Amino acid sequence: MTEEVIIGQGDRMLARLESSARGGGAAVVADRLVAMRAFLGDDLRQVEEELGVLEGKATPLHRSARHLLDLGGKRLRPICVALASRVGRGFVPAAREIAVAVELIHSATLLHDDVVDVGDLRRGAPTARVLYGNAASIFAGDWLLVDALQRIQRVGIPGLLDRVLGVLKEMLDAEALQLENRGKLRVPQADYFRVIEGKTASLFRWGMFAGGRAGEASPGQCEALACFGQSLGVAFQVIDDVLDVAGDEATVGKTMFADLREGKVTFPLLVALDRDAGLEEMLREVLGGEETGGEVDIALRIRASGAVEESLALAARLSSEALGHLVALPPGPVRDALEGVALAMLHRVH
Amino acid sequence: MTEEVIIGQGDRMLARLESSARGGGAAVVADRLVAMRAFLGDDLRQVEEELGVLEGKATPLHRSARHLLDLGGKRLRPICVALASRVGRGFVPAAREIAVAVELIHSATLLHDDVVDVGDLRRGAPTARVLYGNAASIFAGDWLLVDALQRIQRVGIPGLLDRVLGVLKEMLDAEALQLENRGKLRVPQADYFRVIEGKTASLFRWGMFAGGRAGEASPGQCEALACFGQSLGVAFQVIDDVLDVAGDEATVGKTMFADLREGKVTFPLLVALDRDAGLEEMLREVLGGEETGGEVDIALRIRASGAVEESLALAARLSSEALGHLVALPPGPVRDALEGVALAMLHRVH
Repeated sequence: MTEEVIIGQGDRMLARLESSARGGGAAVVADRLVAMRAFLGDDLRQVEEELGVLEGKATPLHRSARHLLDLGGKRLRPICVALASRVGRGFVPAAREIAVAVELIHSATLLHDDVVDVGDLRRGAPTARVLYGNAASIFAGDWLLVDALQRIQRVGIPGLLDRVLGVLKEMLDAEALQLENRGKLRVPQADYFRVIEGKTASLFRWGMFAGGRAGEASPGQCEALACFGQSLGVAFQVIDDVLDVAGDEATVGKTMFADLREGKVTFPLLVALDRDAGLEEMLREVLGGEETGGEVDIALRIRASGAVEESLALAARLSSEALGHLVALPPGPVRDALEGVALAMLHRVH
Repeated sequence: MTEEVIIGQGDRMLARLESSARGGGAAVVADRLVAMRAFLGDDLRQVEEELGVLEGKATPLHRSARHLLDLGGKRLRPICVALASRVGRGFVPAAREIAVAVELIHSATLLHDDVVDVGDLRRGAPTARVLYGNAASIFAGDWLLVDALQRIQRVGIPGLLDRVLGVLKEMLDAEALQLENRGKLRVPQADYFRVIEGKTASLFRWGMFAGGRAGEASPGQCEALACFGQSLGVAFQVIDDVLDVAGDEATVGKTMFADLREGKVTFPLLVALDRDAGLEEMLREVLGGEETGGEVDIALRIRASGAVEESLALAARLSSEALGHLVALPPGPVRDALEGVALAMLHRVH
């Protein structure tokens, strides 16, 4: 792997956040991200280096893991860990292990999700499942998870392994709830939040907490970082949901129906179902397979209901809640960077 | 669950080992097992109780886990842990946690295996995959694994969690090797042993070691128990392979071809391929899907090659190797019971 590629991935995320912040007119946010980029460049290079040397065996299992990691991704979780560690004494080797571990856990869930959802594309490339089969993809997920746990164990900070095992249970209980709701349209909002808190926010929460602990931040600061991560994670998922309904109408419709068949409802859809009494019937018809070509109409009606605006307002509240937790941290470039992440979240375009 | 059922499962395994030992004419072995049954009855009841109360949620994920655990199984791994703990101060609560954890890890691998192998039947009932779907079965496996790790973590004995994570890696590397050999007939014997050492023996080894540590046996005794577990695990798998070719010829043929398609070769088959030059060609024809109805012929030729006898001789050597490790333990009922397990292994019929 060339140095440019190694530098590239986490860095590219920062560049993306930055350009989307500028696109959204939030010039102040963009300026903060420029500062963060210089600030974290070396940390992220170390993470990519470590992910790059992980296991060189050539079996289908190991190739599946390699394939997914090599495709990059936003590396948002390692970015969070790196920032959290800098609240204390910085991106020490323990923090690097945590940053790698959190990305590996995330990757493990993607490998299992692609089998469960029969996913064909991920990060613009065929999924490991397509290239190497279900077996390799399932076992590769298991392998990455165990590797992550070994790293956390080796770091040896009391309480971290405990907590991450608890987080894994939360993630699985959320998957369980989602499976249980498969096929339902009117999922209670409480269930929606339980699912995204478990599947997405819990790992952000742990990553921020563990990063703080690795950097030897104070217990109060670590708890503040955990709360920040939790709010940020929920906001992240709500914005993801908004992006799902914000594209070209035909694509939006298709994605939404694929998601619905897997039991995944989005926040804008739940809001729209509450506001537009005729929408549920339309959805049922399309889900029932009757060829009404109604996907485009449905996407338009969701937008017309004001659901996107309500979702953005929720994300803004969550982002502001996240910012509120930062008052426990000393002012300075790290706190500024964390603020930048929470604000940029609202302006991201992918 | 009635008390009878709770008592039943591990106990039933002892009864089975006992009757198969008598069937094989090994009356001395059978007598030892009678003694062991009285000896371990209460320990196994505790294990069943603990497995019985594990997680009552009614989601497809939790039902999948429950379904597999309720079907019972041999509970051989908990039996090993219980015996190992009794080399020291006995089946203390830490030993019970280890016994439950080892059964949960084993169950987690079965849930993933049934998805990978598209298995329809397990322990005489439809698999969780068939009843609740692939997603529930994969996530249930993940859930049981995390639950097992939480138990091992809670026990808090230094080194146990470390070692079990290493064992999980060994198990996955063995799966990786098996996947890599999928579709090959002439797998090197070295690969065969690496696969069964990783997939089967490593968990027996860990269970015996951890049981010894939980019972506070001496470091030397714990290492002897680990070595015993390793040899016992390999012997167990070789006998499993023999049972695969020992039944009705038509069934044997079908099972063998199903296994071969998943990359699973058995020891008797490897031996027979070495001894009977025409066998490989016959196998390729049947595997190639040409309707030769040759399954029965193949099973007969494997038996005619003397492969079964050679496999039994290997299992006997492994069993005797296992017995050799027991000299590090004090003489008495526990050592007798461990000897009984190693000997009964050779006489088991299912």
